[in-house]
Amino acid sequence: MALNKLTIIKVGGKIVEEEDTLKQLLHDFSTIEGSKILVHGGGRSATKLAERLGIESKMVDGRRITDSETLQVVTMVYGGLVNKNIVAGLQSLGVNALGLTGADMDIIRSEKRPVKDIDYGFVGDVKKVKADVLKLLIDQGIVPIVAPLSHDGKGHMLNTNADTMAAETAQAMSEYYDVSLVYCFEKKGVLMDEHDDDSVIPQLDKASYQKYVQEGIIQGGMLPKLENAFKSIEKGVSEVVITQASEIGKGKGTTII
Amino acid sequence: MALNKLTIIKVGGKIVEEEDTLKQLLHDFSTIEGSKILVHGGGRSATKLAERLGIESKMVDGRRITDSETLQVVTMVYGGLVNKNIVAGLQSLGVNALGLTGADMDIIRSEKRPVKDIDYGFVGDVKKVKADVLKLLIDQGIVPIVAPLSHDGKGHMLNTNADTMAAETAQAMSEYYDVSLVYCFEKKGVLMDEHDDDSVIPQLDKASYQKYVQEGIIQGGMLPKLENAFKSIEKGVSEVVITQASEIGKGKGTTII
Repeated sequence: MALNKLTIIKVGGKIVEEEDTLKQLLHDFSTIEGSKILVHGGGRSATKLAERLGIESKMVDGRRITDSETLQVVTMVYGGLVNKNIVAGLQSLGVNALGLTGADMDIIRSEKRPVKDIDYGFVGDVKKVKADVLKLLIDQGIVPIVAPLSHDGKGHMLNTNADTMAAETAQAMSEYYDVSLVYCFEKKGVLMDEHDDDSVIPQLDKASYQKYVQEGIIQGGMLPKLENAFKSIEKGVSEVVITQASEIGKGKGTTII
Repeated sequence: MALNKLTIIKVGGKIVEEEDTLKQLLHDFSTIEGSKILVHGGGRSATKLAERLGIESKMVDGRRITDSETLQVVTMVYGGLVNKNIVAGLQSLGVNALGLTGADMDIIRSEKRPVKDIDYGFVGDVKKVKADVLKLLIDQGIVPIVAPLSHDGKGHMLNTNADTMAAETAQAMSEYYDVSLVYCFEKKGVLMDEHDDDSVIPQLDKASYQKYVQEGIIQGGMLPKLENAFKSIEKGVSEVVITQASEIGKGKGTTII
Protein backbone atom coordinates (compact mmCIF):
# COMPACT_ATOMS: atom_id res chain seq x y z
CA MET A 1 0.00 0.00 0.00
CA ALA A 2 1.38 3.41 -0.96
CA LEU A 3 1.96 5.69 2.00
CA ASN A 4 0.47 9.17 2.17
CA LYS A 5 2.82 12.02 1.48
CA LEU A 6 4.16 14.19 4.33
CA THR A 7 6.22 17.32 3.66
CA ILE A 8 8.54 18.53 6.44
CA ILE A 9 9.92 22.02 5.88
CA LYS A 10 12.83 23.39 7.90
CA VAL A 11 13.38 27.15 7.81
CA GLY A 12 16.13 29.06 9.54
CA GLY A 13 15.85 32.06 11.77
CA LYS A 14 16.50 34.66 9.10
CA ILE A 15 13.33 33.82 7.18
CA VAL A 16 10.94 33.71 10.15
CA GLU A 17 12.32 36.74 11.96
CA GLU A 18 11.74 39.40 9.34
CA GLU A 19 8.17 40.45 8.70
CA ASP A 20 8.30 40.41 4.88
CA THR A 21 10.07 37.07 4.43
CA LEU A 22 7.93 35.50 7.18
CA LYS A 23 4.75 36.66 5.44
CA GLN A 24 5.93 35.18 2.14
CA LEU A 25 6.98 31.93 3.80
CA LEU A 26 3.64 31.52 5.59
CA HIS A 27 1.83 32.10 2.32
CA ASP A 28 4.01 29.59 0.44
CA PHE A 29 3.73 27.05 3.26
CA SER A 30 -0.06 27.44 3.34
CA THR A 31 -0.26 26.45 -0.34
CA ILE A 32 1.58 23.12 0.11
CA GLU A 33 -0.98 20.39 -0.34
CA GLY A 34 -1.40 17.43 1.95
CA SER A 35 0.07 16.73 5.37
CA LYS A 36 2.91 18.95 6.53
CA ILE A 37 5.12 19.98 9.44
CA LEU A 38 7.16 23.16 9.84
CA VAL A 39 10.37 23.16 11.90
CA HIS A 40 11.77 26.62 12.54
CA GLY A 41 14.86 28.29 13.95
CA GLY A 42 15.15 31.66 15.65
CA GLY A 43 18.82 32.11 16.49
CA ARG A 44 19.10 35.72 15.39
CA SER A 45 16.22 36.84 17.62
CA ALA A 46 17.71 34.89 20.51
CA THR A 47 21.06 36.60 20.00
CA LYS A 48 19.34 39.99 19.78
CA LEU A 49 17.34 39.45 22.99
CA ALA A 50 20.39 38.08 24.82
CA GLU A 51 22.30 41.19 23.77
CA ARG A 52 19.58 43.50 25.11
CA LEU A 53 19.67 41.57 28.39
CA GLY A 54 23.44 41.81 28.61
CA ILE A 55 23.91 38.06 28.11
CA GLU A 56 26.85 37.16 25.88
CA SER A 57 26.08 34.72 23.03
CA LYS A 58 28.89 32.17 22.77
CA MET A 59 28.90 30.05 19.64
CA VAL A 60 31.13 27.05 18.80
CA ASP A 61 30.90 25.75 15.21
CA GLY A 62 27.56 27.51 14.84
CA ARG A 63 26.16 25.90 18.01
CA ARG A 64 25.06 28.08 20.92
CA ILE A 65 26.63 27.41 24.31
CA THR A 66 23.50 27.33 26.48
CA ASP A 67 23.91 28.26 30.13
CA SER A 68 20.79 28.53 32.30
CA GLU A 69 20.14 32.20 31.44
CA THR A 70 20.56 31.45 27.72
CA LEU A 71 18.16 28.52 28.04
CA GLN A 72 15.55 30.95 29.37
CA VAL A 73 16.20 33.23 26.40
CA VAL A 74 15.83 30.48 23.77
CA THR A 75 12.76 29.04 25.53
CA MET A 76 11.14 32.48 25.35
CA VAL A 77 12.20 33.28 21.81
CA TYR A 78 11.81 29.89 20.08
CA GLY A 79 8.88 28.49 22.07
CA GLY A 80 7.06 31.79 22.59
CA LEU A 81 7.77 34.68 20.26
CA VAL A 82 8.77 32.99 17.00
CA ASN A 83 6.56 29.91 17.35
CA LYS A 84 3.35 31.74 18.30
CA ASN A 85 3.75 34.39 15.63
CA ILE A 86 4.02 31.63 13.02
CA VAL A 87 1.00 29.82 14.49
CA ALA A 88 -1.18 32.96 14.57
CA GLY A 89 -0.06 33.87 11.04
CA LEU A 90 -0.88 30.42 9.65
CA GLN A 91 -4.26 30.35 11.42
CA SER A 92 -5.15 33.57 9.61
CA LEU A 93 -4.39 31.73 6.33
CA GLY A 94 -6.66 28.82 7.21
CA VAL A 95 -3.88 26.43 8.30
CA ASN A 96 -4.79 24.63 11.54
CA ALA A 97 -1.37 25.18 13.11
CA LEU A 98 -0.33 23.86 16.53
CA GLY A 99 2.91 25.12 18.08
CA LEU A 100 5.00 22.46 19.77
CA THR A 101 8.29 21.92 21.53
CA GLY A 102 9.62 18.45 22.22
CA ALA A 103 8.17 18.63 25.75
CA ASP A 104 4.59 19.03 24.51
CA MET A 105 2.99 15.59 24.56
CA ASP A 106 6.56 14.32 24.98
CA ILE A 107 6.97 14.32 21.19
CA ILE A 108 10.75 14.79 21.12
CA ARG A 109 12.88 13.63 23.98
CA SER A 110 16.59 14.25 24.17
CA GLU A 111 19.61 13.82 26.39
CA LYS A 112 21.76 16.66 27.64
CA ARG A 113 24.91 16.52 25.52
CA PRO A 114 27.76 14.90 27.47
CA VAL A 115 30.71 17.19 28.14
CA LYS A 116 33.77 16.19 26.08
CA ASP A 117 36.06 18.95 24.84
CA ILE A 118 33.29 21.52 25.06
CA ASP A 119 30.49 21.98 27.59
CA TYR A 120 27.54 23.03 25.46
CA GLY A 121 25.37 23.41 28.56
CA PHE A 122 21.62 22.85 28.23
CA VAL A 123 21.79 21.43 24.72
CA GLY A 124 19.94 18.25 23.80
CA ASP A 125 20.78 15.38 21.46
CA VAL A 126 17.56 13.85 20.16
CA LYS A 127 16.85 10.34 21.47
CA LYS A 128 13.24 9.66 20.52
CA VAL A 129 10.53 11.16 18.32
CA LYS A 130 6.99 9.98 19.07
CA ALA A 131 5.89 9.54 15.48
CA ASP A 132 2.59 7.93 16.52
CA VAL A 133 1.55 11.04 18.47
CA LEU A 134 2.45 13.37 15.59
CA LYS A 135 0.55 11.06 13.20
CA LEU A 136 -2.57 11.30 15.39
CA LEU A 137 -2.46 15.11 15.14
CA ILE A 138 -1.70 15.17 11.41
CA ASP A 139 -4.48 12.73 10.59
CA GLN A 140 -6.88 15.20 12.25
CA GLY A 141 -5.75 17.94 9.86
CA ILE A 142 -3.50 19.62 12.43
CA VAL A 143 -0.23 21.12 11.20
CA PRO A 144 2.57 20.89 13.80
CA ILE A 145 4.89 23.92 14.03
CA VAL A 146 7.98 22.70 15.85
CA ALA A 147 10.34 24.99 17.79
CA PRO A 148 13.98 23.88 18.22
CA LEU A 149 13.54 22.87 21.86
CA SER A 150 13.24 19.40 23.34
CA HIS A 151 13.15 18.06 26.91
CA ASP A 152 14.94 15.42 28.93
CA GLY A 153 11.91 13.87 30.60
CA LYS A 154 13.24 15.03 33.98
CA GLY A 155 11.68 18.48 33.91
CA HIS A 156 14.25 20.36 31.84
CA MET A 157 13.92 22.01 28.47
CA LEU A 158 16.96 21.63 26.20
CA ASN A 159 18.11 23.81 23.31
CA THR A 160 18.18 21.58 20.22
CA ASN A 161 19.47 22.11 16.69
CA ALA A 162 16.59 22.74 14.27
CA ASP A 163 18.23 20.83 11.37
CA THR A 164 18.57 17.79 13.63
CA MET A 165 14.99 18.12 14.94
CA ALA A 166 13.76 18.16 11.32
CA ALA A 167 15.94 15.18 10.26
CA GLU A 168 15.01 13.05 13.28
CA THR A 169 11.33 13.87 12.84
CA ALA A 170 11.51 13.01 9.12
CA GLN A 171 13.21 9.69 9.85
CA ALA A 172 10.68 8.73 12.54
CA MET A 173 7.69 9.77 10.43
CA SER A 174 8.86 7.67 7.47
CA GLU A 175 7.39 4.66 9.26
CA TYR A 176 3.94 6.07 8.45
CA TYR A 177 4.42 8.42 5.49
CA ASP A 178 6.22 8.96 2.22
CA VAL A 179 8.31 11.80 3.68
CA SER A 180 9.82 14.69 1.76
CA LEU A 181 12.24 16.72 3.91
CA VAL A 182 12.90 20.24 2.64
CA TYR A 183 15.79 22.36 3.95
CA CYS A 184 15.55 26.04 3.12
CA PHE A 185 18.92 27.73 2.57
CA GLU A 186 20.16 31.07 1.26
CA LYS A 187 21.08 29.52 -2.09
CA LYS A 188 18.72 27.94 -4.62
CA GLY A 189 20.23 24.51 -4.00
CA VAL A 190 23.54 22.68 -4.29
CA LEU A 191 25.53 24.59 -6.93
CA MET A 192 27.90 23.30 -9.64
CA ASP A 193 29.66 26.68 -9.47
CA GLU A 194 29.52 28.59 -6.20
CA HIS A 195 29.74 31.88 -8.09
CA ASP A 196 26.71 31.10 -10.25
CA ASP A 197 23.48 31.07 -8.23
CA ASP A 198 21.65 29.45 -11.12
CA SER A 199 23.99 26.45 -11.48
CA VAL A 200 21.73 24.27 -9.31
CA ILE A 201 22.31 20.51 -9.47
CA PRO A 202 18.73 19.26 -9.84
CA GLN A 203 19.28 15.73 -8.52
CA LEU A 204 21.95 14.01 -6.45
CA ASP A 205 22.31 10.34 -5.67
CA LYS A 206 25.11 8.91 -3.55
CA ALA A 207 27.28 7.97 -6.54
CA SER A 208 27.15 11.38 -8.23
CA TYR A 209 27.59 13.07 -4.82
CA GLN A 210 30.84 11.15 -4.26
CA LYS A 211 32.03 11.99 -7.77
CA TYR A 212 31.35 15.74 -7.21
CA VAL A 213 33.18 15.62 -3.88
CA GLN A 214 36.23 13.96 -5.50
CA GLU A 215 36.19 16.58 -8.25
CA GLY A 216 36.06 19.36 -5.64
CA ILE A 217 32.75 20.69 -6.96
CA ILE A 218 30.93 20.08 -3.65
CA GLN A 219 32.95 21.20 -0.63
CA GLY A 220 32.99 23.17 2.62
CA GLY A 221 29.84 23.71 4.66
CA MET A 222 27.71 21.79 2.16
CA LEU A 223 29.46 18.50 3.04
CA PRO A 224 27.97 17.90 6.54
CA LYS A 225 24.54 19.03 5.27
CA LEU A 226 24.64 16.48 2.47
CA GLU A 227 26.05 13.72 4.68
CA ASN A 228 23.03 14.28 6.96
CA ALA A 229 20.70 14.29 3.97
CA PHE A 230 22.01 10.91 2.78
CA LYS A 231 21.72 9.56 6.33
CA SER A 232 18.03 10.55 6.34
CA ILE A 233 17.54 8.78 3.00
CA GLU A 234 19.19 5.64 4.41
CA LYS A 235 16.82 5.82 7.38
CA GLY A 236 13.71 5.78 5.23
CA VAL A 237 13.06 9.38 4.16
CA SER A 238 11.94 9.34 0.48
CA GLU A 239 13.68 12.53 -0.59
CA VAL A 240 15.57 15.47 0.87
CA VAL A 241 15.30 18.77 -0.98
CA ILE A 242 17.70 21.68 -0.55
CA THR A 243 16.20 24.91 -1.85
CA GLN A 244 15.45 28.55 -1.14
CA ALA A 245 12.55 29.47 1.14
CA SER A 246 11.01 31.48 -1.69
CA GLU A 247 10.86 28.34 -3.84
CA ILE A 248 9.27 25.81 -1.50
CA GLY A 249 6.52 23.76 -3.05
CA LYS A 250 7.69 24.65 -6.56
CA GLY A 251 9.69 21.47 -7.23
CA LYS A 252 12.92 23.42 -7.59
CA GLY A 253 16.27 23.12 -5.76
CA THR A 254 18.45 20.05 -5.37
CA THR A 255 16.71 16.75 -4.67
CA ILE A 256 18.73 14.09 -2.85
CA ILE A 257 17.48 10.59 -3.48
CA MET B 1 -26.36 10.36 31.34
CA ALA B 2 -23.99 11.78 33.92
CA LEU B 3 -21.16 13.80 32.38
CA ASN B 4 -17.51 13.05 33.12
CA LYS B 5 -15.80 15.38 35.52
CA LEU B 6 -13.33 18.02 34.30
CA THR B 7 -11.26 20.11 36.70
CA ILE B 8 -9.97 23.47 35.44
CA ILE B 9 -7.34 25.04 37.70
CA LYS B 10 -6.30 28.68 37.34
CA VAL B 11 -3.07 29.72 39.04
CA GLY B 12 -1.58 33.19 39.10
CA GLY B 13 1.91 34.25 38.23
CA LYS B 14 3.27 34.22 41.76
CA ILE B 15 2.82 30.45 42.14
CA VAL B 16 4.29 29.42 38.78
CA GLU B 17 7.20 31.84 38.79
CA GLU B 18 9.00 30.69 41.92
CA GLU B 19 10.76 27.36 41.81
CA ASP B 20 9.53 26.02 45.17
CA THR B 21 5.86 26.94 44.80
CA LEU B 22 5.88 25.80 41.17
CA LYS B 23 7.29 22.42 42.15
CA GLN B 24 4.62 22.01 44.83
CA LEU B 25 1.86 23.10 42.44
CA LEU B 26 2.98 20.68 39.72
CA HIS B 27 3.03 17.86 42.24
CA ASP B 28 -0.45 18.74 43.57
CA PHE B 29 -1.81 19.19 40.05
CA SER B 30 -0.39 15.82 38.97
CA THR B 31 -2.35 14.08 41.75
CA ILE B 32 -5.74 15.42 40.63
CA GLU B 33 -7.65 12.49 39.20
CA GLY B 34 -9.55 12.53 35.93
CA SER B 35 -9.55 15.08 33.13
CA LYS B 36 -7.97 18.45 33.83
CA ILE B 37 -6.78 21.73 32.35
CA LEU B 38 -4.32 24.23 33.85
CA VAL B 39 -4.61 27.94 33.02
CA HIS B 40 -1.65 30.00 34.23
CA GLY B 41 -0.58 33.61 34.57
CA GLY B 42 2.91 35.04 34.47
CA GLY B 43 2.56 38.77 35.04
CA ARG B 44 5.44 39.15 37.47
CA SER B 45 7.94 37.56 35.09
CA ALA B 46 6.61 39.73 32.26
CA THR B 47 7.08 42.84 34.38
CA LYS B 48 10.58 41.72 35.36
CA LEU B 49 11.63 41.04 31.76
CA ALA B 50 10.09 44.31 30.55
CA GLU B 51 12.05 46.13 33.24
CA ARG B 52 15.33 44.52 32.15
CA LEU B 53 14.54 45.56 28.58
CA GLY B 54 13.76 49.12 29.63
CA ILE B 55 10.06 48.80 28.75
CA GLU B 56 7.73 50.48 31.22
CA SER B 57 4.87 48.31 32.53
CA LYS B 58 1.67 50.37 32.62
CA MET B 59 -1.22 48.83 34.55
CA VAL B 60 -4.83 50.08 34.78
CA ASP B 61 -7.04 48.30 37.36
CA GLY B 62 -4.61 45.38 37.36
CA ARG B 63 -4.71 45.08 33.55
CA ARG B 64 -1.55 45.53 31.52
CA ILE B 65 -1.54 48.17 28.78
CA THR B 66 -0.07 46.14 25.93
CA ASP B 67 1.77 48.06 23.22
CA SER B 68 3.54 46.11 20.49
CA GLU B 69 6.81 45.73 22.45
CA THR B 70 4.88 44.57 25.53
CA LEU B 71 2.99 42.07 23.37
CA GLN B 72 6.35 40.57 22.38
CA VAL B 73 7.33 40.36 26.04
CA VAL B 74 4.15 38.58 27.16
CA THR B 75 4.21 36.26 24.13
CA MET B 76 7.75 35.23 25.13
CA VAL B 77 7.10 34.95 28.84
CA TYR B 78 3.59 33.43 28.92
CA GLY B 79 3.74 31.32 25.76
CA GLY B 80 7.43 30.37 26.03
CA LEU B 81 9.15 30.56 29.39
CA VAL B 82 6.34 29.94 31.88
CA ASN B 83 4.27 27.59 29.73
CA LYS B 84 7.12 25.33 28.62
CA ASN B 85 8.62 25.06 32.11
CA ILE B 86 5.23 23.88 33.38
CA VAL B 87 4.89 21.43 30.49
CA ALA B 88 8.39 19.95 30.98
CA GLY B 89 7.81 19.75 34.74
CA LEU B 90 4.49 17.94 34.37
CA GLN B 91 5.91 15.53 31.77
CA SER B 92 8.55 14.52 34.34
CA LEU B 93 5.66 13.68 36.71
CA GLY B 94 3.90 11.50 34.14
CA VAL B 95 1.28 14.08 33.10
CA ASN B 96 0.89 14.22 29.32
CA ALA B 97 0.91 18.02 29.18
CA LEU B 98 0.46 20.08 26.01
CA GLY B 99 1.16 23.81 26.14
CA LEU B 100 -1.35 25.96 24.28
CA THR B 101 -2.21 29.55 23.52
CA GLY B 102 -5.54 30.50 22.00
CA ALA B 103 -3.90 30.56 18.56
CA ASP B 104 -2.91 26.89 18.69
CA MET B 105 -5.58 24.92 16.83
CA ASP B 106 -7.61 28.15 17.06
CA ILE B 107 -8.86 27.07 20.49
CA ILE B 108 -9.53 30.56 21.89
CA ARG B 109 -10.31 33.41 19.59
CA SER B 110 -10.74 36.96 20.79
CA GLU B 111 -11.32 40.49 19.60
CA LYS B 112 -8.95 43.37 20.26
CA ARG B 113 -10.59 45.38 23.01
CA PRO B 114 -12.28 48.48 21.54
CA VAL B 115 -10.83 51.79 22.75
CA LYS B 116 -13.25 53.63 25.07
CA ASP B 117 -11.74 55.66 27.91
CA ILE B 118 -8.56 53.61 27.89
CA ASP B 119 -6.58 52.11 25.01
CA TYR B 120 -5.43 48.76 26.38
CA GLY B 121 -3.54 48.04 23.16
CA PHE B 122 -3.10 44.41 22.09
CA VAL B 123 -5.49 43.00 24.65
CA GLY B 124 -8.17 40.48 23.67
CA ASP B 125 -11.71 39.91 24.87
CA VAL B 126 -12.59 36.24 24.42
CA LYS B 127 -15.19 35.57 21.71
CA LYS B 128 -15.08 31.82 21.18
CA VAL B 129 -13.62 28.73 22.86
CA LYS B 130 -13.46 25.60 20.67
CA ALA B 131 -14.65 23.15 23.31
CA ASP B 132 -14.87 20.31 20.78
CA VAL B 133 -11.15 20.59 19.96
CA LEU B 134 -10.18 20.65 23.64
CA LYS B 135 -12.46 17.65 24.26
CA LEU B 136 -10.71 15.68 21.51
CA LEU B 137 -7.36 16.26 23.22
CA ILE B 138 -8.63 15.54 26.72
CA ASP B 139 -10.33 12.33 25.65
CA GLN B 140 -6.90 11.14 24.43
CA GLY B 141 -5.45 11.69 27.90
CA ILE B 142 -3.76 14.97 26.99
CA VAL B 143 -3.69 17.71 29.64
CA PRO B 144 -3.90 21.23 28.12
CA ILE B 145 -1.72 23.88 29.80
CA VAL B 146 -3.15 27.20 28.67
CA ALA B 147 -1.15 30.45 28.60
CA PRO B 148 -3.04 33.77 28.89
CA LEU B 149 -2.73 34.61 25.20
CA SER B 150 -5.36 34.38 22.47
CA HIS B 151 -5.47 35.47 18.83
CA ASP B 152 -7.76 37.47 16.60
CA GLY B 153 -7.81 35.10 13.61
CA LYS B 154 -6.12 37.79 11.52
CA GLY B 155 -2.57 36.86 12.44
CA HIS B 156 -2.20 38.72 15.74
CA MET B 157 -1.62 37.37 19.21
CA LEU B 158 -3.51 39.21 21.97
CA ASN B 159 -2.73 39.47 25.68
CA THR B 160 -5.71 38.00 27.54
CA ASN B 161 -6.67 37.90 31.20
CA ALA B 162 -6.02 34.45 32.68
CA ASP B 163 -9.11 34.54 34.97
CA THR B 164 -11.27 35.26 31.93
CA MET B 165 -9.57 32.56 29.83
CA ALA B 166 -10.29 30.04 32.63
CA ALA B 167 -13.93 31.17 33.07
CA GLU B 168 -14.70 31.16 29.33
CA THR B 169 -13.04 27.76 28.92
CA ALA B 170 -15.02 26.35 31.88
CA GLN B 171 -18.29 27.69 30.48
CA ALA B 172 -17.63 26.26 27.00
CA MET B 173 -16.49 22.87 28.33
CA SER B 174 -19.63 22.50 30.46
CA GLU B 175 -21.40 21.38 27.29
CA TYR B 176 -19.40 18.14 27.50
CA TYR B 177 -18.29 17.80 31.14
CA ASP B 178 -19.31 18.28 34.76
CA VAL B 179 -16.88 21.20 35.20
CA SER B 180 -15.25 22.27 38.44
CA LEU B 181 -13.42 25.60 38.07
CA VAL B 182 -10.79 26.26 40.74
CA TYR B 183 -9.27 29.72 41.29
CA CYS B 184 -6.09 29.76 43.36
CA PHE B 185 -5.67 32.86 45.53
CA GLU B 186 -3.38 34.01 48.32
CA LYS B 187 -6.09 33.35 50.94
CA LYS B 188 -7.63 29.98 51.78
CA GLY B 189 -11.00 31.05 50.39
CA VAL B 190 -13.68 33.72 50.91
CA LEU B 191 -13.30 34.84 54.52
CA MET B 192 -15.97 35.77 57.11
CA ASP B 193 -13.32 37.95 58.81
CA GLU B 194 -10.55 39.35 56.62
CA HIS B 195 -8.18 39.36 59.60
CA ASP B 196 -8.71 35.66 60.31
CA ASP B 197 -7.23 33.46 57.57
CA ASP B 198 -9.07 30.43 58.92
CA SER B 199 -12.58 31.97 58.77
CA VAL B 200 -13.24 30.40 55.36
CA ILE B 201 -16.89 30.30 54.23
CA PRO B 202 -17.12 26.70 52.97
CA GLN B 203 -20.08 27.16 50.64
CA LEU B 204 -21.77 30.12 48.98
CA ASP B 205 -24.97 30.20 46.99
CA LYS B 206 -26.42 33.35 45.42
CA ALA B 207 -28.80 34.05 48.35
CA SER B 208 -26.15 33.81 51.07
CA TYR B 209 -23.71 35.77 48.90
CA GLN B 210 -26.20 38.65 48.60
CA LYS B 211 -26.83 38.53 52.36
CA TYR B 212 -23.06 38.71 53.12
CA VAL B 213 -22.65 41.61 50.69
CA GLN B 214 -25.51 43.54 52.37
CA GLU B 215 -23.95 42.88 55.78
CA GLY B 216 -20.59 44.16 54.54
CA ILE B 217 -18.84 40.82 55.20
CA ILE B 218 -17.89 40.34 51.54
CA GLN B 219 -16.51 43.49 49.95
CA GLY B 220 -13.76 45.06 47.88
CA GLY B 221 -11.78 43.04 45.37
CA MET B 222 -13.67 39.85 46.17
CA LEU B 223 -16.90 41.26 44.66
CA PRO B 224 -15.96 41.15 40.94
CA LYS B 225 -14.35 37.71 41.45
CA LEU B 226 -17.56 36.33 42.95
CA GLU B 227 -19.78 38.04 40.39
CA ASN B 228 -17.74 36.25 37.71
CA ALA B 229 -17.98 32.98 39.61
CA PHE B 230 -21.80 33.21 39.76
CA LYS B 231 -21.85 34.09 36.06
CA SER B 232 -19.92 30.88 35.32
CA ILE B 233 -22.42 28.89 37.40
CA GLU B 234 -25.31 30.46 35.47
CA LYS B 235 -23.59 29.44 32.23
CA GLY B 236 -23.39 25.78 33.15
CA VAL B 237 -20.26 25.31 35.28
CA SER B 238 -21.09 22.89 38.12
CA GLU B 239 -19.00 24.56 40.81
CA VAL B 240 -16.43 27.29 41.25
CA VAL B 241 -13.90 26.83 44.05
CA ILE B 242 -11.80 29.64 45.52
CA THR B 243 -8.83 28.28 47.44
CA GLN B 244 -5.08 28.42 48.01
CA ALA B 245 -2.75 26.77 45.52
CA SER B 246 -1.35 24.59 48.31
CA GLU B 247 -4.82 23.15 48.91
CA ILE B 248 -5.97 22.22 45.41
CA GLY B 249 -7.54 18.82 45.13
CA LYS B 250 -8.16 18.68 48.88
CA GLY B 251 -11.81 19.75 48.85
CA LYS B 252 -11.04 22.88 50.88
CA GLY B 253 -11.69 26.56 50.21
CA THR B 254 -14.97 28.24 49.32
CA THR B 255 -17.25 26.43 46.91
CA ILE B 256 -19.67 28.56 44.91
CA ILE B 257 -22.71 26.63 43.72
